Amino acid sequence: MNDIFLKNYPLLITGVRIGEKQGDIFINEQGMIGAIGEQVKKQYAGQAEFIIDGGGAIALPGLVNTHTHAAMTLLRGYADDMVLQDWLSQKIWPLETHLTGDDVYHGTRLACLEMIRTGTTAFNDMYFFMEDAARAVAETGIRAVLCHGFIDFSNPEKREAECRATERLASHIKSLNNPRIKAAAGPHAPYTVSKEGLRWCAEFAKEQGIGIHIHVGETEKEVSDSVAQYGKRPVAVLDECGILTSRTVAAHCCWLNKPECRLFARRGVHASHNPTSNMKLATHRAMPYHWLKAAGANIALGTDGCSSNNNLDMFEAMKSASLLQKFFWNDPTLLPAPEALQMATSAGSRALGLGTGALVPGSLADIVLVSSGTACNVPLHNPVSNIVYSCSGPAVETVLCNGKVLMLEREVPFEQEILTRAQEAASALVQRAAQS
Amino acid sequence: MNDIFLKNYPLLITGVRIGEKQGDIFINEQGMIGAIGEQVKKQYAGQAEFIIDGGGAIALPGLVNTHTHAAMTLLRGYADDMVLQDWLSQKIWPLETHLTGDDVYHGTRLACLEMIRTGTTAFNDMYFFMEDAARAVAETGIRAVLCHGFIDFSNPEKREAECRATERLASHIKSLNNPRIKAAAGPHAPYTVSKEGLRWCAEFAKEQGIGIHIHVGETEKEVSDSVAQYGKRPVAVLDECGILTSRTVAAHCCWLNKPECRLFARRGVHASHNPTSNMKLATHRAMPYHWLKAAGANIALGTDGCSSNNNLDMFEAMKSASLLQKFFWNDPTLLPAPEALQMATSAGSRALGLGTGALVPGSLADIVLVSSGTACNVPLHNPVSNIVYSCSGPAVETVLCNGKVLMLEREVPFEQEILTRAQEAASALVQRAAQS
Repeated sequence: MNDIFLKNYPLLITGVRIGEKQGDIFINEQGMIGAIGEQVKKQYAGQAEFIIDGGGAIALPGLVNTHTHAAMTLLRGYADDMVLQDWLSQKIWPLETHLTGDDVYHGTRLACLEMIRTGTTAFNDMYFFMEDAARAVAETGIRAVLCHGFIDFSNPEKREAECRATERLASHIKSLNNPRIKAAAGPHAPYTVSKEGLRWCAEFAKEQGIGIHIHVGETEKEVSDSVAQYGKRPVAVLDECGILTSRTVAAHCCWLNKPECRLFARRGVHASHNPTSNMKLATHRAMPYHWLKAAGANIALGTDGCSSNNNLDMFEAMKSASLLQKFFWNDPTLLPAPEALQMATSAGSRALGLGTGALVPGSLADIVLVSSGTACNVPLHNPVSNIVYSCSGPAVETVLCNGKVLMLEREVPFEQEILTRAQEAASALVQRAAQS
Repeated sequence: MNDIFLKNYPLLITGVRIGEKQGDIFINEQGMIGAIGEQVKKQYAGQAEFIIDGGGAIALPGLVNTHTHAAMTLLRGYADDMVLQDWLSQKIWPLETHLTGDDVYHGTRLACLEMIRTGTTAFNDMYFFMEDAARAVAETGIRAVLCHGFIDFSNPEKREAECRATERLASHIKSLNNPRIKAAAGPHAPYTVSKEGLRWCAEFAKEQGIGIHIHVGETEKEVSDSVAQYGKRPVAVLDECGILTSRTVAAHCCWLNKPECRLFARRGVHASHNPTSNMKLATHRAMPYHWLKAAGANIALGTDGCSSNNNLDMFEAMKSASLLQKFFWNDPTLLPAPEALQMATSAGSRALGLGTGALVPGSLADIVLVSSGTACNVPLHNPVSNIVYSCSGPAVETVLCNGKVLMLEREVPFEQEILTRAQEAASALVQRAAQS
């Protein structure tokens, strides 16, 4: 049975709940959903190399995490409950200067393991040593869009280095020729990248036909600083530099105003809501979901990195999003469960241009089975409500990405090795920082 | 090995992390912690009937959920994303009129199962048919304080009936003579119980030496209605009626002002913070944790019922509490992880007068082992941070209450039967309501 993992066999998943109905899913050798519905088992049993007994589980499209810094799993719990500036300058940055490519490899493997275990099959990542992150993604079988976090602080030399790093990553990922791994340009934020840097990223992304991943409007200070520096709010600066495109994912978006929400919709920018991180770091304002929705913008979901969350559980992110919106905007009908599930699946897939996010024939087979034989799914009045409000990530029992099995009945290959090596890397990193 | 469940054997738990150290825990036949620390295995191995290999797990005191309506598990996902009044009048109340004692038994069993699986060993419950709830608590081995939800809407006849129901429950629980089950008086809220009803509850609780469990300051409307009706804020009405005592648990407390926080501290009232429910129902204000803390009040934690949460996971409640406080009061240093864990353990135990909540010799052995070999606990820079911010309830692998094993390496006896019967009861309840 070990043989089933990470292979492109034609597969049949039987006896799962798909929306309101029970049915089966046939996955072809191309890693796509070949057929789905009630009569699929009869028709396709002969063609399947393996049959997975769904046992009444709830089938969902694989969840899509549209904003992460995956390797920051190594910093999980290293520093919490601090003011942002102290936290960065006293804790996070001093540790990050000691990071190596191998650390990023081990941290990203840990992140991939955690995401697989909690039903995420694709993520949008920004960090450093991204060729090592790509190695981890390739091995663990998950899907990712990877970018180098481009920060120039208006220093031309630094900018040059960041441009080269961005080019190198894009060319490296092209050379991998892995359908699960894409590159993006990653201008960090309007307050850490010069207009020249932003313009370069926009041009480069356009020329390469790749995405853009950026932080926008996380704090109120970002807005007032931009007005002081440029005489414009950050979104206007980004638009001036060509960053707002239909290939752009903007993380956080807490401090957008109504005209900015409409501009996002017009430009086709995808907003990535990060409710857990926003609460932990006290951004004091929730992304205006209702304005973005009314404007017709695509709204996806993310966890942010593990040092400000501190996990990568997209079930928790769905619940946090729905609850934070209700609470902050004072409306218990806002962001109902079906919309939260959509943010985490189809909207996320659309934001990253993945061709996943729906259980329909022809879709890439990124599929998650959530156990129905667990207290969080009893009673089953409303599976979508249970998924969003009652269950957490560990309710996931089986995960496929691109038609390959990554987890089967809670077994993930090499789990122990991944955990051990990540723990070792994290301990060594802290030790190096302490000795310096 | 099946024999280990729900028995008072002398037990030894070896190789767990207790605070900063590794050690063992010896539990004596009286269900108390006999010894704890580094040399315990050597000393007590001979006396133990069973040895549980902790395997490096993190040992915590059992979590205490100080505000629930346990049997509402049956309504999990039945109605969400609605305005409070519609939700109650169109969905919850019409269903509740069809509830039977057996439904409450099966719903409470499901709640106990869910709590055990997520590390909760004691809960403070308010609902109807509480003798049936007591049956579920007795069987599953968990600890509970049970009250009949007393609602008279200023109707003298209804009040009489509620007084009799409260007396019956207290006398029934006395007759059980079960050290794990206590009664409380349960005046529902200042807006659903007359002053006469409140006074009766206060008197009865004092006379019987039992606790009081009440909703206070959940919504802004409760405050303004009270001012309109009585010329006083609800806390003043409760104080006038003798409800504010050191045996009182006040749930929610969103809309307390500073003088009320100080009054709570003076009277010894225990505040139960219910962050998840407050966000879902959009109370629009978070309990003023910092004012209560500054005043010296005891602050505990609760989930509320499953129809407004929709689970009973106290790990999630710890994280939600910490994050909501930071976000709403705009201070990322507020409610740090160690305080959240304290709220869920020692403060909860103190609120309910349980004699649990600490891992020290002489304490009742309510003990939870959280797996350290799972992604949410890797790396282990800071176990308390991981417990609060990274893990969810399913990271719990073993649970003891009153010295008895309720879950061992994720196995709970009778789990399947509890789930099946609860699902049947919930379906039948919805069917009865639809036919009426």
